[in-house]
Amino acid sequence: MNRKVIITISREFGSGGRYIGEQIAKDLGIKFYDKAIIEMASEKTGFSEEYISENEQKLTGQSLFNFAITGSYAGNMVFGNGESLQDTMFFAQSKVIREIACKGSCVIVGRCADHILGDSENCINVFIYSNMQSKIDRAISKYKLDSKNVEKLLKERDKIRAKHYNYYTGKVWGDSRNYHICLNSDFIGIENCIKMIKSVADRICL
Amino acid sequence: MNRKVIITISREFGSGGRYIGEQIAKDLGIKFYDKAIIEMASEKTGFSEEYISENEQKLTGQSLFNFAITGSYAGNMVFGNGESLQDTMFFAQSKVIREIACKGSCVIVGRCADHILGDSENCINVFIYSNMQSKIDRAISKYKLDSKNVEKLLKERDKIRAKHYNYYTGKVWGDSRNYHICLNSDFIGIENCIKMIKSVADRICL
Repeated sequence: MNRKVIITISREFGSGGRYIGEQIAKDLGIKFYDKAIIEMASEKTGFSEEYISENEQKLTGQSLFNFAITGSYAGNMVFGNGESLQDTMFFAQSKVIREIACKGSCVIVGRCADHILGDSENCINVFIYSNMQSKIDRAISKYKLDSKNVEKLLKERDKIRAKHYNYYTGKVWGDSRNYHICLNSDFIGIENCIKMIKSVADRICL
Repeated sequence: MNRKVIITISREFGSGGRYIGEQIAKDLGIKFYDKAIIEMASEKTGFSEEYISENEQKLTGQSLFNFAITGSYAGNMVFGNGESLQDTMFFAQSKVIREIACKGSCVIVGRCADHILGDSENCINVFIYSNMQSKIDRAISKYKLDSKNVEKLLKERDKIRAKHYNYYTGKVWGDSRNYHICLNSDFIGIENCIKMIKSVADRICL
């Protein structure tokens, strides 16, 4: 790979988006970031990795973004600088994402990376989704989730992801116009998704 | 092509979606439908092609769909069977779309064909969009539109398309989850969009 390429992957839970990202990074010989971003952000904030992992996408109260509109907070823990816990974590992760994108080619999964890195010509923004039955099957076999409540859990996880994305980007999670390529991984096939995204990366790296 | 394949293409105005559809139909040697659907629908309704073309996506008043919710019409011309003009045109075009899909492989551009044909395994639903500057350039060079008002016109056309789609399908126009593959034609490149969609069609036709 001669030129730098950053591939951001947003994905529905159980769609195989994380696996697709891992395989692309492996095939192209570039770095892969997912949970490592939490580790790196924990160093910046002083919060533990566990704490960030549990709270990063839970928008339980007001935050700096709401403050800008309403001019007040309502019962949420706020730091001296006017940031909520969620804002602090989001800002720390955003800084980490910009830093790793500066360093070289990589694949970044989740964490609003498509929005944080903007519309750079080196950046391919991907959204991966799938049919519910396919996501259920993947969640049960891959993550050993309880088959009884799995559909409810999948919907809840995606609802949290959507809320987090919409809140911090002002855009709608899953709207095709936020990404360069969106693929239904069940219909297209996981291997074909990998091939297609790699073909776009090849074009950028020419 | 051994097995039947139906490719529906929804697109932003000026994104090159129609051209992509035409090229795919040509390359695969299958039928292409766009305005021909209006011609076929006009035969069913008795309205002229010009009238349907001008009015098919203008939701100016109440329709059967609203009637189901509100129980009343408000100042719109309604036929004896309770349908508005727009409903009649939508139903006629839907019938035409189902009929042509039954006949054999084809590409259908616009007219909510993705929703009308449902989630059939032979059906590839595509959404094509692009960056505003690219759409402006295409609209000026291709459709000879006035460069002064072209951005406003593009936005208005897509607003009408979105309103029409959302209204008749109950889904959100441009939400990736309504399609199998969504591509930014400026970023991916028109020729690569054609290649990618054809590779999906090849897989279906194996």
